[in-house]
Amino acid sequence: MEVIFIKFGGSLITVKERPYTARPDVIKRLASEVRDALQERQGLRLVIGNGGGSYGHPGAAKYGTIDGFCDNTGRLGFCKVHDDAIRLNRLVVNELLNHGIPALGLPASAMFLTGKRELVYSSPESIKESLNQEIIPVVFGSPILDTHNGCTIYSADRVIGIIIKFLTHAGRYNITRMVSLGNYEGVLDSHGNIIPEITKTGLNKVEACIKGSDATDVTGGMLSKVTELLDIASMGTESFIANGMVPGNLYKLIMGDNIECTAIR
Amino acid sequence: MEVIFIKFGGSLITVKERPYTARPDVIKRLASEVRDALQERQGLRLVIGNGGGSYGHPGAAKYGTIDGFCDNTGRLGFCKVHDDAIRLNRLVVNELLNHGIPALGLPASAMFLTGKRELVYSSPESIKESLNQEIIPVVFGSPILDTHNGCTIYSADRVIGIIIKFLTHAGRYNITRMVSLGNYEGVLDSHGNIIPEITKTGLNKVEACIKGSDATDVTGGMLSKVTELLDIASMGTESFIANGMVPGNLYKLIMGDNIECTAIR
Repeated sequence: MEVIFIKFGGSLITVKERPYTARPDVIKRLASEVRDALQERQGLRLVIGNGGGSYGHPGAAKYGTIDGFCDNTGRLGFCKVHDDAIRLNRLVVNELLNHGIPALGLPASAMFLTGKRELVYSSPESIKESLNQEIIPVVFGSPILDTHNGCTIYSADRVIGIIIKFLTHAGRYNITRMVSLGNYEGVLDSHGNIIPEITKTGLNKVEACIKGSDATDVTGGMLSKVTELLDIASMGTESFIANGMVPGNLYKLIMGDNIECTAIR
Repeated sequence: MEVIFIKFGGSLITVKERPYTARPDVIKRLASEVRDALQERQGLRLVIGNGGGSYGHPGAAKYGTIDGFCDNTGRLGFCKVHDDAIRLNRLVVNELLNHGIPALGLPASAMFLTGKRELVYSSPESIKESLNQEIIPVVFGSPILDTHNGCTIYSADRVIGIIIKFLTHAGRYNITRMVSLGNYEGVLDSHGNIIPEITKTGLNKVEACIKGSDATDVTGGMLSKVTELLDIASMGTESFIANGMVPGNLYKLIMGDNIECTAIR
């Protein structure tokens, strides 16, 4: 069973500098490209993940949710940040449903537990069964419960990485690629040029010049993303960091075509 | 650790006869009663569940979701019914958050799988950890994936029953009562009088006269609810079916006071 993972970056589907501001037109176009590609590639399975963008990061920064229950507002803060994340996920799921795509929002908080930020319990059985039943699970960067600190936050990239690991070990899923879309053309060097390929052994050559994210991003920005995707590469799945603002890019990447972007292998 | 379960019935928080019509004023009042009771009873843990009411049943009836993917609209239908259920759950969670209550919506679809409608996989670890961390999980009647039929629907009562079973086996949770609220005064006999107590051995005496639900209810109405609650009683937890439309009833039942209603023991 061929599976492709798609990440809608927070910078793509929200205006990162403006709290709680989505880009409904972009979400709509992405949904239409998914629909068009699925019509061409019957039998292909997808897992979609969405970042939090300006829905996730402001609350998370306010309450320090990534570090646990930091003060007596921490519990309520965790729940509010979770609710914000679900709000954005519902916009994505709704637009997919509007395009006739059977999409199912599944929160990481119900499937994973951490202890001191390390994964201590995971139960992605519903992801696996969704794929078996030709349903498209839509996961997202989200606060999750932590047995030691009370809570933390896992980015969509981290959640996707865990699921890829699980499916890879399960055996019968052939994960051919991970498509990570943002409002940037790929990973840029200090001159603003796209780095065409990053590998684990080549990371040190480009590490110093990788630009960080330019808005609040509690889960770490571009370098952290590259690190997560190198982990995914080590499991045998190559990733493409590409510009989701360009119409057709998502469609082409699902179809297996090459476009100008950064490959992580 | 003392735990009380609370069910907000679909007939209470929605207008069952009018599709997708909530009762925001009622949800708000219920949240205020939960807040008031928690202020009095520090250390008490709650699990809240909400029924689907007029958000859940119309779509479920249209697509036949309880029986699986009935035709080629079944997959999309399953996802739409799931989305409808989450929409109502978010109204409940939001109102709890507005009242300063740390509430976390957790979909059964991410925690349970069935096969031919029987539970074949469950992972309520996030429910357990929520209670450990003094977070209130808010579950709901929901479509879930079925390994044989594609999907089915579990009512909020069924979901709550599974969680009570799990917590009872886990040992360290002392589940003192289950409060099930509707827009009715309890279980009524054929003369319209409240039946004060129903037990497993006494069920056959009242079974014939228990009135069914008067609106679309794909998960079975009152008799099905009583059966679920008798299952819960067999695990040692008594339930109270009471009128949530009467202000103060929820507060009193959380505080352990007696009101006129039906007890299931």
